[in-house]
Amino acid sequence: MTIKQQLMDKLAARNDEMIAIRRHLHEHPELSFEEQQTAQYIADFYANKDVKVHRNVGNGYGIIVEIQGQHPGPVIGIRADFDALPIEEETDVPFKSKNPGVMHACGHDGHTAYLLILADCLIQLKDELHGSVKIIHQHAEEKPPGGAKSMMASGLLDDCEIIVGAHLFPTFKVGHIGYRAGAAMAGRSFFKLVVHGTGGHGSSPHLANDAIVAASNFITTVQTVISRRLNPYDMGVVTIGSFDGKGTFNVIKDAVTLEGDVRYMNDTVHATIEKEIKRLVDGLEVQFGVTCTLTYEKDYPPLVNDKDLTNFVVETLEASEQEEIIAIEEAPLFSGSEDFAYYALAKPSTFYYIGCQPTYLDVPYMNHHPKFDIDERALLVAAKAGAEVVAKYCLK
Amino acid sequence: MTIKQQLMDKLAARNDEMIAIRRHLHEHPELSFEEQQTAQYIADFYANKDVKVHRNVGNGYGIIVEIQGQHPGPVIGIRADFDALPIEEETDVPFKSKNPGVMHACGHDGHTAYLLILADCLIQLKDELHGSVKIIHQHAEEKPPGGAKSMMASGLLDDCEIIVGAHLFPTFKVGHIGYRAGAAMAGRSFFKLVVHGTGGHGSSPHLANDAIVAASNFITTVQTVISRRLNPYDMGVVTIGSFDGKGTFNVIKDAVTLEGDVRYMNDTVHATIEKEIKRLVDGLEVQFGVTCTLTYEKDYPPLVNDKDLTNFVVETLEASEQEEIIAIEEAPLFSGSEDFAYYALAKPSTFYYIGCQPTYLDVPYMNHHPKFDIDERALLVAAKAGAEVVAKYCLK
Amino acid sequence: MTIKQQLMDKLAARNDEMIAIRRHLHEHPELSFEEQQTAQYIADFYANKDVKVHRNVGNGYGIIVEIQGQHPGPVIGIRADFDALPIEEETDVPFKSKNPGVMHACGHDGHTAYLLILADCLIQLKDELHGSVKIIHQHAEEKPPGGAKSMMASGLLDDCEIIVGAHLFPTFKVGHIGYRAGAAMAGRSFFKLVVHGTGGHGSSPHLANDAIVAASNFITTVQTVISRRLNPYDMGVVTIGSFDGKGTFNVIKDAVTLEGDVRYMNDTVHATIEKEIKRLVDGLEVQFGVTCTLTYEKDYPPLVNDKDLTNFVVETLEASEQEEIIAIEEAPLFSGSEDFAYYALAKPSTFYYIGCQPTYLDVPYMNHHPKFDIDERALLVAAKAGAEVVAKYCLK
Amino acid sequence: MTIKQQLMDKLAARNDEMIAIRRHLHEHPELSFEEQQTAQYIADFYANKDVKVHRNVGNGYGIIVEIQGQHPGPVIGIRADFDALPIEEETDVPFKSKNPGVMHACGHDGHTAYLLILADCLIQLKDELHGSVKIIHQHAEEKPPGGAKSMMASGLLDDCEIIVGAHLFPTFKVGHIGYRAGAAMAGRSFFKLVVHGTGGHGSSPHLANDAIVAASNFITTVQTVISRRLNPYDMGVVTIGSFDGKGTFNVIKDAVTLEGDVRYMNDTVHATIEKEIKRLVDGLEVQFGVTCTLTYEKDYPPLVNDKDLTNFVVETLEASEQEEIIAIEEAPLFSGSEDFAYYALAKPSTFYYIGCQPTYLDVPYMNHHPKFDIDERALLVAAKAGAEVVAKYCLK
Repeated sequence: MTIKQQLMDKLAARNDEMIAIRRHLHEHPELSFEEQQTAQYIADFYANKDVKVHRNVGNGYGIIVEIQGQHPGPVIGIRADFDALPIEEETDVPFKSKNPGVMHACGHDGHTAYLLILADCLIQLKDELHGSVKIIHQHAEEKPPGGAKSMMASGLLDDCEIIVGAHLFPTFKVGHIGYRAGAAMAGRSFFKLVVHGTGGHGSSPHLANDAIVAASNFITTVQTVISRRLNPYDMGVVTIGSFDGKGTFNVIKDAVTLEGDVRYMNDTVHATIEKEIKRLVDGLEVQFGVTCTLTYEKDYPPLVNDKDLTNFVVETLEASEQEEIIAIEEAPLFSGSEDFAYYALAKPSTFYYIGCQPTYLDVPYMNHHPKFDIDERALLVAAKAGAEVVAKYCLK
Repeated sequence: MTIKQQLMDKLAARNDEMIAIRRHLHEHPELSFEEQQTAQYIADFYANKDVKVHRNVGNGYGIIVEIQGQHPGPVIGIRADFDALPIEEETDVPFKSKNPGVMHACGHDGHTAYLLILADCLIQLKDELHGSVKIIHQHAEEKPPGGAKSMMASGLLDDCEIIVGAHLFPTFKVGHIGYRAGAAMAGRSFFKLVVHGTGGHGSSPHLANDAIVAASNFITTVQTVISRRLNPYDMGVVTIGSFDGKGTFNVIKDAVTLEGDVRYMNDTVHATIEKEIKRLVDGLEVQFGVTCTLTYEKDYPPLVNDKDLTNFVVETLEASEQEEIIAIEEAPLFSGSEDFAYYALAKPSTFYYIGCQPTYLDVPYMNHHPKFDIDERALLVAAKAGAEVVAKYCLK
Repeated sequence: MTIKQQLMDKLAARNDEMIAIRRHLHEHPELSFEEQQTAQYIADFYANKDVKVHRNVGNGYGIIVEIQGQHPGPVIGIRADFDALPIEEETDVPFKSKNPGVMHACGHDGHTAYLLILADCLIQLKDELHGSVKIIHQHAEEKPPGGAKSMMASGLLDDCEIIVGAHLFPTFKVGHIGYRAGAAMAGRSFFKLVVHGTGGHGSSPHLANDAIVAASNFITTVQTVISRRLNPYDMGVVTIGSFDGKGTFNVIKDAVTLEGDVRYMNDTVHATIEKEIKRLVDGLEVQFGVTCTLTYEKDYPPLVNDKDLTNFVVETLEASEQEEIIAIEEAPLFSGSEDFAYYALAKPSTFYYIGCQPTYLDVPYMNHHPKFDIDERALLVAAKAGAEVVAKYCLK
Repeated sequence: MTIKQQLMDKLAARNDEMIAIRRHLHEHPELSFEEQQTAQYIADFYANKDVKVHRNVGNGYGIIVEIQGQHPGPVIGIRADFDALPIEEETDVPFKSKNPGVMHACGHDGHTAYLLILADCLIQLKDELHGSVKIIHQHAEEKPPGGAKSMMASGLLDDCEIIVGAHLFPTFKVGHIGYRAGAAMAGRSFFKLVVHGTGGHGSSPHLANDAIVAASNFITTVQTVISRRLNPYDMGVVTIGSFDGKGTFNVIKDAVTLEGDVRYMNDTVHATIEKEIKRLVDGLEVQFGVTCTLTYEKDYPPLVNDKDLTNFVVETLEASEQEEIIAIEEAPLFSGSEDFAYYALAKPSTFYYIGCQPTYLDVPYMNHHPKFDIDERALLVAAKAGAEVVAKYCLK
């Protein structure tokens, strides 16, 4: 039996344990940058194992585990995130969140579970390993500025030749793995716009300066950034997700606050959107005589998977003989954002999607839904897919 | 000495008491429709006096006191309101509100104080009175549907030949009284518009239906009701005082709620505004595919002072020999609203403004401001002005 | 018989001649500033009469005729305008315009006809006249900058104590005369806004800068000037009458031109509108990156009739015993504009409306309509009304 | 020497003739559907040659020439269009258009010139040809509904295995050929929207219904179709190229006409845009009380090049040993439209771009510009590229 097959068998043998870990994590979710217990759980897992564990990596509870092989060879990184979301869980699973208002609604519990087991199996096979594997347990993916950028900046991943990551997505069926070479997910920016007018009595608009009218005009006008300023073949989104202007019907508001979300796939588009929003705000001040405070923050960049690496991983997975890995599919572009993008900026990287669609539903609840749920068979798929990649690089 | 002058002297002699009453009321303000203590205070004032006191008149704590003269003559009404506002007082007066979040910020404490003393003096002079005076202590002027309509509907004022009312306004100096024949204050309507779209992720507008964009479009478009649909010589206002759309920057809102204020001076204008708002809402549903729930409620009508009565009162006041009454001025139209308008719909009525501008300020704080304050010398002006009117009708 | 009655009888006797003059003028209309034949016709009328005739007064063909009385007394002015409009007449009258595309669609033919006959009768009665009457035949009322301002500036009217004018209006029935003390008609300004963007192919908005989108935004936003910037009791209008943006469906326009009309009743409102339009244009440049050229020209001021004079004229007309003068009515405010306003700025003046509603129509065609028509009995009403005013001042 | 090389040499030898033909056509341009002389010129070219010439194919002057080889083999089509544009030429070339207001500003003169020479050379080599070549001289590419659809519908091209076409583009340098597999150019629709309000005087908006305000609102609102209704990764454009609303500043327009251009890359997007525009127009009628007349016409579909054929052609051209063919480049998506799309709907087709950038300019004038010019060396590149494709299919 090949070493790789031994690894696969080890993974399969520990499937129940992997599911148990995932359920434990699911029951005890923690918000981004507050994952103290989760990080301790992970650290405890590696206690007394023959690996180097770096804790508190980057700007939070990040953990990097170095599995040093016996033989020379490449260094590769595998990343799983472990933070949860500020969502009140609405599922009926027995391991439902015990932390009110917090939920693993994006599958990070599953990411961590499969990666712990994969790591442990690789530790057991260290003597056979050519090169080394860096296990990246990343905190705070869900909340800007995220954990990835700072973990990359720690220097601990500088020697990685490649980095891969996986995400559970109920868009795909269990056993199906989605990939996308090149640009795959959107970059994101955030802005907050406070429009200050002058309050007054609803019956006397001329003595006030109506912030609601000015802000509504901004929203109407900002549509032209997308419709008229971008190359029609380029992707761009400006969403105003929040219009904080609650008041009293007969009182003119003196100030309202908008919060907006920007998506884009390349820097040219992003620069255009940022410039045009600023221009519209400047013009709004002139037109309506209001004073505006604009905070514009660039957030996760677009995720661009390395084409060669992606194709190489796809070939590797397509050649897999593991029965759990049924199909490898090209995924559409997603307008969501991921801080895995920071690894991909620094190193040849690829991020693939692990199908986890529950069979009991016609239409699955998507990530971030309070009823989000996964088919747990997906964990073994994720583990074996990761194993295939590791094997290709580090097992002879 | 004439009876009238006796009345005037009595009022002057009780100035300190009048101020004390006002301060007591100021210290214990109560919200509209909740003025239980205030009503009890008023009723206690009349206890053991030889008048008929009607309590709980209309839809609240309204009180009507009948002062029946010895001689035949006309029945006239004088109204003062006694409710306070949901405002946290910010003045430094020693008799500052002891009821947190509630304040007599519109002078109703002063209205009630002067009318109690005037009523008491008239009671003392009952034997000289030709006709009778109905003292109208009205609850709930500040909150629709108001108290006036229901007090008028009680039937207790059906025999009034005329009704007068006064309001403290710091726009005018102490000793100055403002009047306006005919239309004087605006009518008001209220509307609430809930715009229901479909929520979604900020990065995927096509899978959602953005309620904030639709509602902003309504606000932009509703401006045309005033700018294009009304006779330019007509008065009309549509203010959106509240845009309740707080959310998260990267989540598209599924619903937002607007609240609006409408002002007008005649029914044609009001009908046009109401019709056009409904039309815009209907069109919004079609244009944006949203579902709208519009609640539109007609509130206080325009206040139209009887021209003859107003002129008669102006002449009466101009002829006054009381030194406290310095000047009678024509007031501009006010875009605010008053439920005194309901009396004016039913009976020849006039509503005049008692100057109360504090001398210690260059620019006074207006009614409804948390620092609203009055020059208390205005109370005696109000009392004597009322006395002049009563004397004209009921003293020989 | 009084002198006044002699005057009235003379007017009545020449009714047919008056109508004939009006028809002649109607048949030969001339545009503003081009009224050479009309001016000659008027001058010929006065030839060989014992009056001083000033020709080419002001910036055009204006004529002032001085009728100097035998006795000392006040100098008064009566004005009638004589220019026509660039309208293709659509009536079926036998004396239809013979000048294609030009029409007396505003009644100036009638104004001139009645004033010529009145003048002639006054000339015949010169010996009885106390003071003198200045007959003001004004050119170019219809086209800014108008003739009135320059005729006033000529100095020839400096000694007038008062100036009156009349206008035929089918809003009123024949025999009815409308008046309005104080503000009566709106002031007017004109603006032209050229919005320069960058042309391009319809399929590539990002390579162009769409002037149509920017200009449409201006139109949407300019509504707020009326709806939010003015005291709701003030009158103001901003109309965009022209959007010159014809092009090809698949080519983005590089420039479009808007033309707008502003109305107002007082300088504060006008200043606000002008300031806000400029502000909006400045902001538009910033918001859309377009270049704007704004030409803003103040035109006729609001017409404010002298209150005392108006009341005096009303009393005079109400006291008239002439059967043709049936009723004197207060007219509503009109949002149209008149350069008679310039006389009213300089001298106590009043401008009244002569009813001329044709009886054969349920709804009359208004001034400036290609089917505008008058009931010619109105001419004698105008003449007699003028005679009443002259008599009051200059006949004993 | 191979047959292919013989063909290449023949083409090179006739370069001057090819240029002369192009110049003749350039001097005598004809508008779409009016190309009578051009079609006659083409037909004359083939007179007395041993080929079957079909004239008046489809809905105009289309010509198809069948070059039947001696040997069995595939049938392939090559298309060149021959109509010109309604543009006044502004170049200084000696062969400038002699037809005022009409210009070959899109290179169709060059397309026809190269294809005539290529056809003639192929005719000379008929005995060596395996299969046959259908030369498609297409009329009316520039004007909807175009000639392509009807030529395809004639049935004469039913036996074509593939169809190729080429277009001169100054975006690319001479010797460079651009290609794009799959979707390459946008589909297009056209709409005309007449907004009928009610005219009136500029000073009285309430008596009119302002079509300019309503139409401007449509333009503001239609931006949301692109910004909020489409998948951000999808391409869509709505341009309003014409706003026909010229009028007079003080008259409210009763009707204005907009003309718009729609671009898209797939039917889903097109269906969304069409549906949303109709919805906005329906809503506009409700909101503003205007009556709208919307004409919406679907025009050329998106051009989708067959992937396999395109790759095959690219490989063929990359393998070319002709020194004139310097580089084969992947072209970006173009938002312009082409009726070659109809061939591509029916048969595996590909449309490639022949670089023709003049060397004497830093920035070339693009197609449809009145100064559009080509480097005529591009004709031989086009001819040889076409020859390579024919050779691959029909020469052994």
